[in-house]
Amino acid sequence: MKLYIGNKNYSSWSMRSGVLLGAFGIPHDEVMLRLDFTPGAAWRQELAGVSPAGKLPVLVDDDGFAVWDSLAITEFIADAYPDHAIWPRDRQARARARSLCAEMHAGFTQLRTVCPMNIEAFLPEVGQTLWADDEALRADVTRLDAAWREALAASGGPFLFGEFGAVDAFFAPVAIRLSRFSLPVSDAAAAYRDALLAHPAVEDWVAGAMREQDFLPAAEPYRTAR
Amino acid sequence: MKLYIGNKNYSSWSMRSGVLLGAFGIPHDEVMLRLDFTPGAAWRQELAGVSPAGKLPVLVDDDGFAVWDSLAITEFIADAYPDHAIWPRDRQARARARSLCAEMHAGFTQLRTVCPMNIEAFLPEVGQTLWADDEALRADVTRLDAAWREALAASGGPFLFGEFGAVDAFFAPVAIRLSRFSLPVSDAAAAYRDALLAHPAVEDWVAGAMREQDFLPAAEPYRTAR
Ligand SMILES: N[C@@H](CCC(=O)N[C@@H](CS)C(=O)NCC(=O)O)C(=O)O
Ligand SMILES: N[C@@H](CCC(=O)N[C@@H](CS)C(=O)NCC(=O)O)C(=O)O
Repeated sequence: MKLYIGNKNYSSWSMRSGVLLGAFGIPHDEVMLRLDFTPGAAWRQELAGVSPAGKLPVLVDDDGFAVWDSLAITEFIADAYPDHAIWPRDRQARARARSLCAEMHAGFTQLRTVCPMNIEAFLPEVGQTLWADDEALRADVTRLDAAWREALAASGGPFLFGEFGAVDAFFAPVAIRLSRFSLPVSDAAAAYRDALLAHPAVEDWVAGAMREQDFLPAAEPYRTAR
Repeated sequence: MKLYIGNKNYSSWSMRSGVLLGAFGIPHDEVMLRLDFTPGAAWRQELAGVSPAGKLPVLVDDDGFAVWDSLAITEFIADAYPDHAIWPRDRQARARARSLCAEMHAGFTQLRTVCPMNIEAFLPEVGQTLWADDEALRADVTRLDAAWREALAASGGPFLFGEFGAVDAFFAPVAIRLSRFSLPVSDAAAAYRDALLAHPAVEDWVAGAMREQDFLPAAEPYRTAR
């Protein structure tokens, strides 16, 4: 299998799938397409040949069959590897995990917009200003914190439903955002954030991001250079 | 089971779940919460007691267990009713259907923003102006049209993967938008749009919307009254 991803430093959607495959030890090759947003950039052509949706990540299996979108990739992997607990085994826990992933997929727009993922950039002052000024950001983080606390209280942690699963891979980029922008969360949410950041599959992705040493202006609302 | 929904006329996310349950004849009661966005509106309290995410739709099963988010509700129903082909039976078709649903869930932002669902309002002139002026809207519809054509060509129609399934329920609100704003699409996409609009579960939802005769200013960028 091949996983097409964007820059590890910036591509939060790619990170979900990369961390999922990494955490479950699912063998795959990575193909990184640099997210160069200048018109006519060559990766667009290459990606169009792989996925009609034109977005990353894309998973291509050994038959050349392409699945696009991080959530659909998750379900495809769960279908293909029933021996792995990609989703919780318990029917109700599974439904809750999927509710959280789907809520993340369509929501938390303000958090995603004003705190874009940028693994190598530590921007606590930016985070402090945003936190003071941006009510929609505070609402997103408040909801996130409550959702995490509820799941952790029910499962006992350390991950949302006990063992690491797809839903935790979905929140790995959020843990990066909370950390890099130093956004305030409850103790329980902070412990979960830190458990995510310390997971080997997350550490591995972060190490890859650190090696990139790339700078994409379109993904940098707060820095002018590295 | 109970399905909590917003106004049928406006609530596109609710429509997905309502049409899905309707199309597969899954017995349920509907609880409609009027989407009154004035601060302190009473439905917020009622909804908070049902779902921590505070959004509609929410499915509550006979044990009082709540699943929120239209995509997670779809998976929950697929889990609970394995005899219904909620997703295509074929593994690859299923992955494609999920890719399309997930792409819809997180994407098509411009189409959703500038052409909000409003079943009773026919606004072809607004659609014409938007179409001329809004490149991002045209890009969304172009991608949608291509995705539909590809699936229809592979399956032979009349629905995206042959028989009506979850992915078609997801696109039912889009068919309404295309119709109400009279946006131009290919012949194949238009035929699919019309097949969606003629599906009994969609017709049923539309009839319910027409009976509401409500007007929510926050959901009305283009009308000042009914
Ligand atoms: N819902 C999609 C979103 C993917 C997405 O937007 N990916 C970004 C990179 S992180 C992308 O490909 N952007 C290119 C573009 O929008 O043109 C998923 O979950 O995979
Ligand atoms: N991703 C969610 C989105 C649900 C959603 O945003 N629903 C709207 C009504 S159509 C809502 O509840 N809005 C209330 C609010 O945002 O406060 C889903 O698919 O169910």
